[in-house]
Amino acid sequence: MPGRALDGVVVLELGHVYMGPYCGLLLAHLGAEVIKVESPSGDSVRRRRTGDSYPFLMLNAGKRGIRLDLKAERGREVFLRLVEGADVVVENYRSGVLARLGLGFEALRDVNPRVILASGRGFATPGPNAHVAAMDVTVQAMTGVIASTGFPDQQPVKAGIAAADFLGGTHLAAAVLAALFQRERTGTGQAIEVAMQDALLPALASNLGGYFESAGALPERTGNRHGGLALCPYNVYTAADGWVAICCTADRHWLALCGVLGREDLARDPALADNPGRVARMDEVDRAIEAWTCRRTRAECSGQFHRAGIPAAPVLGLKEVVEDPQLEAGGMLSVVEHPGRGPVRVLGSPLRLSASAPLRPAPAPALGQDTRQVLASRLGLGESELDELSELGSSSQTRSRAADVTAPRPERCCQG
Amino acid sequence: MPGRALDGVVVLELGHVYMGPYCGLLLAHLGAEVIKVESPSGDSVRRRRTGDSYPFLMLNAGKRGIRLDLKAERGREVFLRLVEGADVVVENYRSGVLARLGLGFEALRDVNPRVILASGRGFATPGPNAHVAAMDVTVQAMTGVIASTGFPDQQPVKAGIAAADFLGGTHLAAAVLAALFQRERTGTGQAIEVAMQDALLPALASNLGGYFESAGALPERTGNRHGGLALCPYNVYTAADGWVAICCTADRHWLALCGVLGREDLARDPALADNPGRVARMDEVDRAIEAWTCRRTRAECSGQFHRAGIPAAPVLGLKEVVEDPQLEAGGMLSVVEHPGRGPVRVLGSPLRLSASAPLRPAPAPALGQDTRQVLASRLGLGESELDELSELGSSSQTRSRAADVTAPRPERCCQG
Repeated sequence: MPGRALDGVVVLELGHVYMGPYCGLLLAHLGAEVIKVESPSGDSVRRRRTGDSYPFLMLNAGKRGIRLDLKAERGREVFLRLVEGADVVVENYRSGVLARLGLGFEALRDVNPRVILASGRGFATPGPNAHVAAMDVTVQAMTGVIASTGFPDQQPVKAGIAAADFLGGTHLAAAVLAALFQRERTGTGQAIEVAMQDALLPALASNLGGYFESAGALPERTGNRHGGLALCPYNVYTAADGWVAICCTADRHWLALCGVLGREDLARDPALADNPGRVARMDEVDRAIEAWTCRRTRAECSGQFHRAGIPAAPVLGLKEVVEDPQLEAGGMLSVVEHPGRGPVRVLGSPLRLSASAPLRPAPAPALGQDTRQVLASRLGLGESELDELSELGSSSQTRSRAADVTAPRPERCCQG
Repeated sequence: MPGRALDGVVVLELGHVYMGPYCGLLLAHLGAEVIKVESPSGDSVRRRRTGDSYPFLMLNAGKRGIRLDLKAERGREVFLRLVEGADVVVENYRSGVLARLGLGFEALRDVNPRVILASGRGFATPGPNAHVAAMDVTVQAMTGVIASTGFPDQQPVKAGIAAADFLGGTHLAAAVLAALFQRERTGTGQAIEVAMQDALLPALASNLGGYFESAGALPERTGNRHGGLALCPYNVYTAADGWVAICCTADRHWLALCGVLGREDLARDPALADNPGRVARMDEVDRAIEAWTCRRTRAECSGQFHRAGIPAAPVLGLKEVVEDPQLEAGGMLSVVEHPGRGPVRVLGSPLRLSASAPLRPAPAPALGQDTRQVLASRLGLGESELDELSELGSSSQTRSRAADVTAPRPERCCQG
């Protein structure tokens, strides 16, 4: 009996780009049936390159895909009928878009009082920026992440990862799960909202700590040093073939490090015995470490540091990450066969639950791939009704788009 | 009846630094009673500066705090009695530490088959790095985040935020909520694990997409450009008084942008009409934008871009973020009175649930502040037993530490 935490839970995902789709992906990993509902032209991330883009393939793996035109009355009718049998609707449109389509929370609740509407946003409502268009990089800009990333004497730079999108999507999934749990007691659904900005802010804890504790006197960007300049040693040091990161959070790490470096003089220096003392002489400590690391490879450095119990790591490039046996062992980048694309990598689940079996990796759906099958099985529509629905809503433009998509089985698409 | 999603749920948090404590904080925001169980010397983040550090105060606000020595038999006995009445135990020790103390999942399950043990790690078990000591910056190094952050011709730099810790902690909270929901059906608890590395990897979607689609030919670091160089315009542009971020995800954004810049020639250029065309001429597009932004302030730029519906934002510094009326409106950085510290800022909840009232902001506990009260109320220990417990375990060293702590009411600490 390989049960899963969300067995029987049905999610309609109106997600696009990263935040909504990542929320949907986490729920799918937990066993929910996630039906991705796309507009006639599909999630915009599909089309960033010719053919479905790789990020689309990674973030929508294992979901079912249907195509519905929510701007058309028939599309909205069909959607509301799907809501009747759903547990969760996930969306990350701009604030107000769903309501203007007549699909706000009240409309959903009218057909299903148990439904949970989960909305991902850039900025929380209400608030002066609630209606500002937001993307990962603009939210990073507005939340101090760009100002806090990079070297103090250089231009600020964004975090290389889409931190706002993914912290946003993960928080949104947590909120959905909390609402599902609450519904077990109350019997009713609710509307939930997560703003990327709010989800990003706590991750600035070190930087905010440094800001408040120094009354704003610290440099905004600290390069590879601790965000609040509150720990030492803490930096990324030059090695013979790249860089190596070190982070000493305990005095025993410092003593062990001095041992590896052969610097018993530093270990014996009472002024360096505790973290505040080392912080006060950060430049000197960093120079001593780099004098040692720069003459050794990353592997030599991290090997010796690990054996001494010091938190340290080589700075790995993407090629090394993709080939990392650790990620391989955890199934985090497994290969699936995609119809038309051949083998592609899909993401495993960071949520490892001993009583909820991991999902078997599956490819992302082609646009509208499951429309007929989902509407037939969930709404009981017959062949003639499905045909009519397809004929009704198919413009020549969306027909030709559909033809671009490599679908594993022939079908037409319902757009209402 | 201002109910909360996790009303009645009891969490024992053995968290330290950021990952475990942030998981506990999210659960507290949802209404769980979170009892932070600290070692005699306390969460190491307390002591990064003199007096409890600001990050500690932010991440542990609203929790109760008890002090127990789990290395002592009496401490473990008391802890297991607390587990009997708890729903969740959150920990982020190194793999194997709890088991060596005799407090692994089996031991907890023996006293409470409904308990959920949530373990935060650096790297997933099993795996070659499962036992490697991990901190935010070392996981960023091992997962390609550092290699992907910064400018292509410069040294790599970490993300300014503690992305591994906070993506880790948020995923861990989501896993706890999934296990609580599953327990409603199965009646039993389970062991769950989230590794920071796994939680960080999906946020590299753009970068991994670029890597796989180009077969590794793209530069690893793209500065402020899209991580997979797959979108244009997408950059941080110089303004007269700083920088402004722009991200065009639709052709209509591009046309609107050309209008603002007064560059109808670009809007009419068919080669720039779609995103792949603009990506191919990224340098030229970026120069045209910066020629306009660099002569205007951040506020002028973003004002004009917003009015035209273009996703854009000024790069705000920490001072501006801390004073941001948007974050103020959402209660994300409210002020509470801390006994002994005066007014301090605490974090609001990114999880906004319409049927789960926001928590009233409260300060973080002093070390061992609630030990006697919690043990008396939860385990029914009498005064003499509590006194004995305190006397038994108090070494002079931990006594003197306890005296450093500003506790709002006089009490002694139980260390077993």
